[in-house]
Amino acid sequence: MAEQIEELSQTIQHLSDLIQSGQDNTFIDSFEALHEYEMAQAYAGLPEQFRSVAWRLLSDDILASVFDNLDVDEVDIVALLKEMPPRRGARILQEMYADNAADVLQEMPPRLVATYLSLMPKSEADEVRQLINYDEQTAGSLMSTEYLAVEENLHVDDVMHLVKKQALEAESISYVYVLDKQEHLMGVISLRDLLTHADDLPVINITNERIISVKAGDDQADVAQIVANYNFLSIPVTDDNNRLLGVITVDDIVDVIDEEAVEDYSGLAAVNVSQINDTPWHSAVKRIPWLIALLLLGMTTATLISSYDGLVRRASILAAFISLITGTAGNAGTQALALAVRRIAVGSDKNGLRDFFSEVIAGILVGIATGLSVFIVVALWKQNVVLGFAVGLAMTIAIIVANLAGYLIPVVIDKIGFDPAVASGPFITTLSDLTSVLIYFNVAQLFITHFIGG
Amino acid sequence: MAEQIEELSQTIQHLSDLIQSGQDNTFIDSFEALHEYEMAQAYAGLPEQFRSVAWRLLSDDILASVFDNLDVDEVDIVALLKEMPPRRGARILQEMYADNAADVLQEMPPRLVATYLSLMPKSEADEVRQLINYDEQTAGSLMSTEYLAVEENLHVDDVMHLVKKQALEAESISYVYVLDKQEHLMGVISLRDLLTHADDLPVINITNERIISVKAGDDQADVAQIVANYNFLSIPVTDDNNRLLGVITVDDIVDVIDEEAVEDYSGLAAVNVSQINDTPWHSAVKRIPWLIALLLLGMTTATLISSYDGLVRRASILAAFISLITGTAGNAGTQALALAVRRIAVGSDKNGLRDFFSEVIAGILVGIATGLSVFIVVALWKQNVVLGFAVGLAMTIAIIVANLAGYLIPVVIDKIGFDPAVASGPFITTLSDLTSVLIYFNVAQLFITHFIGG
Repeated sequence: MAEQIEELSQTIQHLSDLIQSGQDNTFIDSFEALHEYEMAQAYAGLPEQFRSVAWRLLSDDILASVFDNLDVDEVDIVALLKEMPPRRGARILQEMYADNAADVLQEMPPRLVATYLSLMPKSEADEVRQLINYDEQTAGSLMSTEYLAVEENLHVDDVMHLVKKQALEAESISYVYVLDKQEHLMGVISLRDLLTHADDLPVINITNERIISVKAGDDQADVAQIVANYNFLSIPVTDDNNRLLGVITVDDIVDVIDEEAVEDYSGLAAVNVSQINDTPWHSAVKRIPWLIALLLLGMTTATLISSYDGLVRRASILAAFISLITGTAGNAGTQALALAVRRIAVGSDKNGLRDFFSEVIAGILVGIATGLSVFIVVALWKQNVVLGFAVGLAMTIAIIVANLAGYLIPVVIDKIGFDPAVASGPFITTLSDLTSVLIYFNVAQLFITHFIGG
Repeated sequence: MAEQIEELSQTIQHLSDLIQSGQDNTFIDSFEALHEYEMAQAYAGLPEQFRSVAWRLLSDDILASVFDNLDVDEVDIVALLKEMPPRRGARILQEMYADNAADVLQEMPPRLVATYLSLMPKSEADEVRQLINYDEQTAGSLMSTEYLAVEENLHVDDVMHLVKKQALEAESISYVYVLDKQEHLMGVISLRDLLTHADDLPVINITNERIISVKAGDDQADVAQIVANYNFLSIPVTDDNNRLLGVITVDDIVDVIDEEAVEDYSGLAAVNVSQINDTPWHSAVKRIPWLIALLLLGMTTATLISSYDGLVRRASILAAFISLITGTAGNAGTQALALAVRRIAVGSDKNGLRDFFSEVIAGILVGIATGLSVFIVVALWKQNVVLGFAVGLAMTIAIIVANLAGYLIPVVIDKIGFDPAVASGPFITTLSDLTSVLIYFNVAQLFITHFIGG
């Protein structure tokens, strides 16, 4: 990766030099020779004064490729678009794939959206307008409306003719969808089958009618799972009446899988890891609210401990094991949490009670094994069997409780319709600190007369 | 997803009934009408006595599709293969895509590998044997050797003819690679361009020579990043002399992205979340070693606290804030860790010193903000400004240290060549417990004469 970053900055330097020295045609040639992804990176990386020359030199087509390949989460695309007059910006939005144009418009204030849409031809504007309406994280928000579709009464050569004609427009040419007169999705033909069958064969013979499709409102994570399982290059999206609305291509699925994984991972650490290139100030500002919220929750634990002040005064040794018990129970809870969140993410969380009992039993086994270890270590270290037993017992119970909380909290959050990834690891560990301390001091109180002075 | 699991069990029931009632042809038709992924799921899900009928009825081709679509991480493919006589198993391996066959063989003991390879035709056996030799997690282990390649002195129709002929063999037909006589990779032609250009055009005119390729030894995570960035459907793999060895298709990249994310996520929770369907016993057995290792590390903190026993006896209130300080510093450390691991995973960790200072500044800001909050809360709650100041100061220093450790540890682990995801969250928090306690009691000791009796 290091070489690539270096190459990019060399490319940007080279392109800047060409603009500065007025070698317009060489600039255009060099720029157009780049891969689309590289064009996008280079364009966004050019100093603004050179970029303002660049967009005057480059064609709408090329600029549409540039904007198609920029990631709205990483680059301020709206700012780049606003560097050009609105009329030019609208022409570029219109040349882009409709789903990408919709993504850009979703980043803008409504007034600006209206301006751009009013400058686009009505049919393109309508297409984009429809896509904007789908909720983020749904199949509808990912789909492209540039797909290949035919009626069923054609032959292989008719369809190939159509594929050739539309190949430059469509986002994916791997599949051609078969529709009836009311646009209902009837089946799919693969380009592979078209290429390997006789020209005069009716396509009905190679149409696969067992078609897997998703609904526009489906969760993007479920769609990604299907595409990943079936190894599809694209998947059709329909409305509730099975009318074809668009297709989602595998490159968008790759982004979704990454995005969903980043969300789960961020939840486990209480920090948004997609923003890795923030300034220190912004980075700190985003981390602090989480830490302070958790701190306030942690204050309840501090309050609880201080309410056992009398106990600590009688046996100050108890203080030594607070962090051991809270830490270990927190670790066990985090394990259960991570497993539960993953189970929900991949959709294998449908066994309800069986999963629950399975997790309870695992928690008990983990609790006993860990409690037994700490009993042996503490009994030997402090030469005090009762103290070891108290700490070990408290540890066992604390782990069983933390484990159960780690499992149940994401499951419940998912059931009531929220993203279980928000049940972040730090939240579970902070909560389990509280229960662990409660369990610890209560167990200790039971045994204190036996181990004190030991 | 729930409907799909239900559908699958219905399909399996239906197929079992057909076998039991001896309707062999209906079984074959029903099975072959399934999507390849569904075939694989259904085959693996059949009761063994029916499966032993199924493989006798199904063709090598169909069984190869079944085995191509099973995931070695989820299903015991070797056991399924061993249900058939070795000769039949070898025929299926030989019909499978070479990369998938190699994945299956990599799961077997060497003796069995030798048996199967000896039963395969020499050329296929050699192909597979070569793939087995690539290390896991490298580009070589992912690549398929069934790709389309041509020499450069051809015309569009020649190449289309070849594409049509090989379309059923090749794993991906989206790109055709152009090689010179020594098999060096010279460029790539997209199927889209072939379809949209005249038959008599020399392909050299539509060959893209700015080709992006990877080396067989490259890390799979880096390869996945490139494919995701460039939106490729496949990427060529070459040796050090730029000779084409194979191609990696996007469906394998989807699996890699998921796998790498799962690894990072697992690291943050000290549990392998890819094994979500373990029995409680196995699940517990895998979690316990981590917990006990962390417990032993945590014992050093307990020992440290008990060495400050005199201090706790003098001011038992100090015990109340142990879990608050260790917990909050642990959370801050986990945030820094997650960001560092992510930065390394996506390859944007090449700014060295700048990243370091950026993280130090963020840590200081986070530490001061959090320390200030705790100072105010404790000072008000305990009506003791000095105690509040001591706890706040300890918190600030503990966070700065934990934050730095969370950043530095994965960076150092990565530098010395290991996977930074092993620097798991619980390891960082347990380690930061130790430093936090050390800082806390030392700061407390400085101020004890001022807040005691307060």
